[in-house]
Amino acid sequence: MKHRLAALLLALGWSCALLPAFAADPLLERARLHFDPLPDHPPDRPANPVTPEKVRLGKTLFFDPRISRSQAVSCHTCHNLSLWGVDRQETSIGHAWQRGPRNAPTVLNAVFNLAQFWDGRARDLAEQAGVPIQSPLEMAASKAYVVQVLSSMPGYLRLFREAFPGEADPVTFRNATLAIEAFEATLLTPGAPFDRFLQGDPDALTPEQRKGLALFMDKGCAACHMSLNVGGNGYYQFGVADAPPAGVCPSTDPGREAVVETITCEFVFKAPSLRNVAMTPPYFHSGKVWDLHTAVAIMGSAQLGLRLAPGEVTLVTRFLESLTGRPPVVTLPELPPATDRTPPPAP
Amino acid sequence: MKHRLAALLLALGWSCALLPAFAADPLLERARLHFDPLPDHPPDRPANPVTPEKVRLGKTLFFDPRISRSQAVSCHTCHNLSLWGVDRQETSIGHAWQRGPRNAPTVLNAVFNLAQFWDGRARDLAEQAGVPIQSPLEMAASKAYVVQVLSSMPGYLRLFREAFPGEADPVTFRNATLAIEAFEATLLTPGAPFDRFLQGDPDALTPEQRKGLALFMDKGCAACHMSLNVGGNGYYQFGVADAPPAGVCPSTDPGREAVVETITCEFVFKAPSLRNVAMTPPYFHSGKVWDLHTAVAIMGSAQLGLRLAPGEVTLVTRFLESLTGRPPVVTLPELPPATDRTPPPAP
Repeated sequence: MKHRLAALLLALGWSCALLPAFAADPLLERARLHFDPLPDHPPDRPANPVTPEKVRLGKTLFFDPRISRSQAVSCHTCHNLSLWGVDRQETSIGHAWQRGPRNAPTVLNAVFNLAQFWDGRARDLAEQAGVPIQSPLEMAASKAYVVQVLSSMPGYLRLFREAFPGEADPVTFRNATLAIEAFEATLLTPGAPFDRFLQGDPDALTPEQRKGLALFMDKGCAACHMSLNVGGNGYYQFGVADAPPAGVCPSTDPGREAVVETITCEFVFKAPSLRNVAMTPPYFHSGKVWDLHTAVAIMGSAQLGLRLAPGEVTLVTRFLESLTGRPPVVTLPELPPATDRTPPPAP
Repeated sequence: MKHRLAALLLALGWSCALLPAFAADPLLERARLHFDPLPDHPPDRPANPVTPEKVRLGKTLFFDPRISRSQAVSCHTCHNLSLWGVDRQETSIGHAWQRGPRNAPTVLNAVFNLAQFWDGRARDLAEQAGVPIQSPLEMAASKAYVVQVLSSMPGYLRLFREAFPGEADPVTFRNATLAIEAFEATLLTPGAPFDRFLQGDPDALTPEQRKGLALFMDKGCAACHMSLNVGGNGYYQFGVADAPPAGVCPSTDPGREAVVETITCEFVFKAPSLRNVAMTPPYFHSGKVWDLHTAVAIMGSAQLGLRLAPGEVTLVTRFLESLTGRPPVVTLPELPPATDRTPPPAP
């Protein structure tokens, strides 16, 4: 810890003014046991290194509706990067205006989650990316269709060759998802007030946010929502202490039980990351709650068996607002031109 | 003309090498009687000056699905700026997956059209922008709803105040459409090979494209597709010489007759701009033709009564490919955060 502190001071430009604040802030020292600041750069992932070429291809694919059956739905449709990687829908609208079963999680910082989807059924972002493309409710395409579409465009062939150099036949569905993963790994939101606090700026949080942070740790929220993503790293039963309000955890959705069949884990879901949570209503896997205060109160009762006082709910909400970082700046890609071999949209 | 040439030379940096090419290229001299190069900057429009603040607001609105009833459809949905301002659909998919009646025209360079929509029923881009927002088939909102949504967000209030300084109550539907118009007026695609040719670079067109340009003028295409936008400045009956193939000009769509009721103008439509036409299939107001060669051949017979030879069709198509310019670089806006007063999406 001392070594880390020293390195941090060096990085920030050590100052006499800063040191006493560090030493004298027990809230910061305690918070550092639970949380880490978001980095500016994607993590090292040796299985799928994030190269500029792969990011470029992945971004192009992310914005391309032509890999859906209707050619009208793209990853960006539900993971709108102008809207913090979500779509502000209870559950997303997909192919032929069908509704998906769960609220769309944000792609921002998703690379730091232990697994993807509310039930964790995708090991990583590449595995995740392949699912909506093929889901009849979402993009309603097939692997073969995607490869047919992409292979029809010399512009894509070039992007795949650059992203996967040395591969004889780089235009594959798997490579498409690896490229999307690489792009999504760059979608980080560093610089939140809470990150600046963790990095040693005692004034980054307001007095209310400091109290909210203390409550967040005291009441037990941080037992599930911790670490880099303030969540996204464990599975828990929704309603372990008390039943959530009607409709918020519908009995029709068994959660992780459908993924892990050997143990009983009905209504078990991944605790979502709370980063930028103030910007991504509606809440919960059902998307049934629009107000962050209400969501905090429900979590208090359903997960902790606590009836939080309204003032406490407000303070925790204020703390959660300090988790809003700087969204990535994204320039729209120019999609490779279609050719006569590109299939037209299907109904 | 001499004055214009002199000014151009001055602008380009006069050179001895350039002058003979100018003087010796009758094709260029002839083309200049029909066409003008696209400018880099939006036109002066005193009625709605293009200010950076208005463009910023307009861009934000253009990308914001929350001004639609479902909060899932934005201007960008059908005028995808990654896809040359169109959506690659015969007719667009709107609210509840309903299909619009006509192929979506591109927003790129649309500011230079004499009027908007295939039938010219909107005088300008501001008037145009208000229509899809309110169309039950497209964004399915109302003026009151849009103002309610926008007024609920302090971030929008700030953008409107900056865009319309001095107005007591700037958050109006009309101002929203004026801002969208200002943004769209910046969506230009200068720098096409044909523009560089018009600006005096004799090598900007390939030999095939030069032959195609000559045919385009000789055969009569340039009678309707002329000037800055190579079209977009007149109304003509589709099928004036010969009936188009079945389905291409459906009898259910009377065209401009529904707008101008005093004269008979069944199947009269605005001749579309051909700028970037190679990038924006499918073609015609019906969107029934995917291949540019076929579209050229149909135009030859339907409008000019000519059965163009396949080689001629190819040459004209090559020329049309020289109309592809540099698409605008667009960075996604960060949309103002919703508040508790922002209505949730409606079904």
